[in-house]
Amino acid sequence: MMDQASKTLKDDLRQAINWLASFGKTENDGVTRLLYDEAWQRAQQALAQKMNNSGLLVRFDDVGNLFGRLPGTEDKAPVILTGSHLDTVVDGGKYDGAFGVLASLLAVDRLRQQFGAPKRTLEVVALCEEEGSRFPISFWGSGSITGAYQQSDAAGLEDSSGVRFIDAMQQAGFGKGDYPAPTRNDIACFIETHVEQGITLELEQNTWAAVTHIVGQQRYTITLTGESNHAGTTPMDRRHDTVYAAARMIAHVIRRAEQAQNGLVATVGRIKVAPNVPNVVPGSCSFTLDIRHHQSDVINRFSGQAVADFRQQARKAGISIQITKWMDALPVPLDPKLAELGYSLAQKAGIPCKKMVSGAGHDSQIFGSYCPTALLFVPSHNGISHSPNEFTKLDDLETGVQMLIKLLHHLAY
Amino acid sequence: MMDQASKTLKDDLRQAINWLASFGKTENDGVTRLLYDEAWQRAQQALAQKMNNSGLLVRFDDVGNLFGRLPGTEDKAPVILTGSHLDTVVDGGKYDGAFGVLASLLAVDRLRQQFGAPKRTLEVVALCEEEGSRFPISFWGSGSITGAYQQSDAAGLEDSSGVRFIDAMQQAGFGKGDYPAPTRNDIACFIETHVEQGITLELEQNTWAAVTHIVGQQRYTITLTGESNHAGTTPMDRRHDTVYAAARMIAHVIRRAEQAQNGLVATVGRIKVAPNVPNVVPGSCSFTLDIRHHQSDVINRFSGQAVADFRQQARKAGISIQITKWMDALPVPLDPKLAELGYSLAQKAGIPCKKMVSGAGHDSQIFGSYCPTALLFVPSHNGISHSPNEFTKLDDLETGVQMLIKLLHHLAY
Repeated sequence: MMDQASKTLKDDLRQAINWLASFGKTENDGVTRLLYDEAWQRAQQALAQKMNNSGLLVRFDDVGNLFGRLPGTEDKAPVILTGSHLDTVVDGGKYDGAFGVLASLLAVDRLRQQFGAPKRTLEVVALCEEEGSRFPISFWGSGSITGAYQQSDAAGLEDSSGVRFIDAMQQAGFGKGDYPAPTRNDIACFIETHVEQGITLELEQNTWAAVTHIVGQQRYTITLTGESNHAGTTPMDRRHDTVYAAARMIAHVIRRAEQAQNGLVATVGRIKVAPNVPNVVPGSCSFTLDIRHHQSDVINRFSGQAVADFRQQARKAGISIQITKWMDALPVPLDPKLAELGYSLAQKAGIPCKKMVSGAGHDSQIFGSYCPTALLFVPSHNGISHSPNEFTKLDDLETGVQMLIKLLHHLAY
Repeated sequence: MMDQASKTLKDDLRQAINWLASFGKTENDGVTRLLYDEAWQRAQQALAQKMNNSGLLVRFDDVGNLFGRLPGTEDKAPVILTGSHLDTVVDGGKYDGAFGVLASLLAVDRLRQQFGAPKRTLEVVALCEEEGSRFPISFWGSGSITGAYQQSDAAGLEDSSGVRFIDAMQQAGFGKGDYPAPTRNDIACFIETHVEQGITLELEQNTWAAVTHIVGQQRYTITLTGESNHAGTTPMDRRHDTVYAAARMIAHVIRRAEQAQNGLVATVGRIKVAPNVPNVVPGSCSFTLDIRHHQSDVINRFSGQAVADFRQQARKAGISIQITKWMDALPVPLDPKLAELGYSLAQKAGIPCKKMVSGAGHDSQIFGSYCPTALLFVPSHNGISHSPNEFTKLDDLETGVQMLIKLLHHLAY
């Protein structure tokens, strides 16, 4: 690409990111754009207009996914779908989801301008929902396209203000049959560009990655019940101190994850103590454990040992224990051929790159068990995400779009 | 004592405990009697009447302490003061404080009936406040008598409803100069009977104890600041996980207290985590540490080592640490002669007894640095206190009164 074109792409990117962030902009210079809310509606309408201006054929489906189609000359071949999600967390950043939508739109726009109609049809998608930040459901957009969700799965849900999902959807103009049903069976592959939401690329001075797997996750709550006692009058050897027991369990399980050095991550993010006052030996303590890896057997071995260790530690401490597994999401392998293709294109272009595992969930994990899927990362500065401080350098955003252009060109032309 | 007399004392005790518990009785069959509240006022007035019926000279002081005086024939000798506090915690039990007041009243009544006027003046006291459960001040009764408190120390305080201390006191009829100022300089010694609030006596099948020391306490808050990060995308070796660091610190410090086996007790009773969600590596965690022993140097050695260990552990974990000491109450030795006298009287009477340290605070610790003081314990069933389930067997209550009769007889007649 010429310097001039590159400069223009950066300008377009900067402008597009700030433009989309203006829909739902918060006091903290963050973005709150929740499924079917007013900012979301304005953003989807404005994106539809922008797609139209790029010469794409625009349509919504009946759950609010937005597509911009560049028909291929071999029109009957299935569609190459590329995009990401439009919604954000509450007071999130400008890049998570939004960058993937805009990268796809700019990439397809550049391809059309430079090479005209592709052989295979390209579609840009702004998925309606991924974050689960308004209603207690996530991946609503990708799940509706792939058939993982039916409309009835969400209809009865309510947001925190008591608004029913069905009412919010219909108020936004969807769910009434005015648009085609969301489920598709004409998709050849899905390609998503996203910010890493981690610090790995930046630390390793890589600027781009092809994701090979999205990790599986198990989440547990461990509840310990001992005996609340007077902190002054209860001798050490007469205590059933649940905080002490929890501390030993947490120290042990996290140390095991550290020592494994196999990419497994384990997190105790929430602790609840009762009565939680300084001068009472605490009779109750619960904590969560989140375990992630891209191989099921690694997760299962780790969690199986953790559960056995916790029970033994509780028995020794004379404390009763209850262990509840409340999430068990399997790892999703993405398409190895697409990952290798992206990786080799990046190497050829001299871009510092790697193949890696995604520790966060993405729409690609829904598409991954439905069609060949590629997830492509650009760095997140300091690994910050879901925050107004989320940031990716313009140079890195541009790399993301350039790589998408190369990949789509290879696949569609 | 004759069986008949003993039976009568038990009957009187049972009746008196239930009678006093009726002032401020709660739905849970507990007692809520807070300084200067309506139940407190009715209880002090009823107690004054009861003291009067026992032939004692009754008076209040200007903070609401209630005294019943049995004048001695050697009238100029300083007073032997005996009693405990009238107030309770919110939804507390029938015994904490109340038993000590009633034991003293019944003991002096029995002595007067059996032996007439003593040589040395005996005074029964119902101290107005010890628990600190209404206003943010405790030991208001004993502190006012000993001069540890002036009225101005409390005047500006407010309870949780915004009622000013001075208004509550005046509404109850005190703090207006209608009664003598509380500070006394005519007290020879103070003798308090109290429930143990611990399980030691019951476990060891002792039914009575003379307390040698009230423990000192230090309380700390340890605040750790690391970095909140995505639980999926942050590798184990890139975390500044404050819950993991806190778990190692807590496990280490409580283990040290367990291993010391020197009577020191250490408690982590409160933990606060932020953001406290399962899927975020927690960037902030604070916990409290409560350390008690009856020797200052033991507390200081333990806490000094704990602080040094915490700092080292934080440094190794790359986490910043702030340690605040917000309580440092010195141990209070009680009068060794009075303790020995009580102990030998109990042994002579064949009562299973011991000398012990009190891990809880009591009015005796305020009197202890002012005049020779004895604190005498009866068992607490299961060590439960500050609860409607607080319970001491009638046999044990009777032992407490009998021992008080013996001791007062020895000192006053």
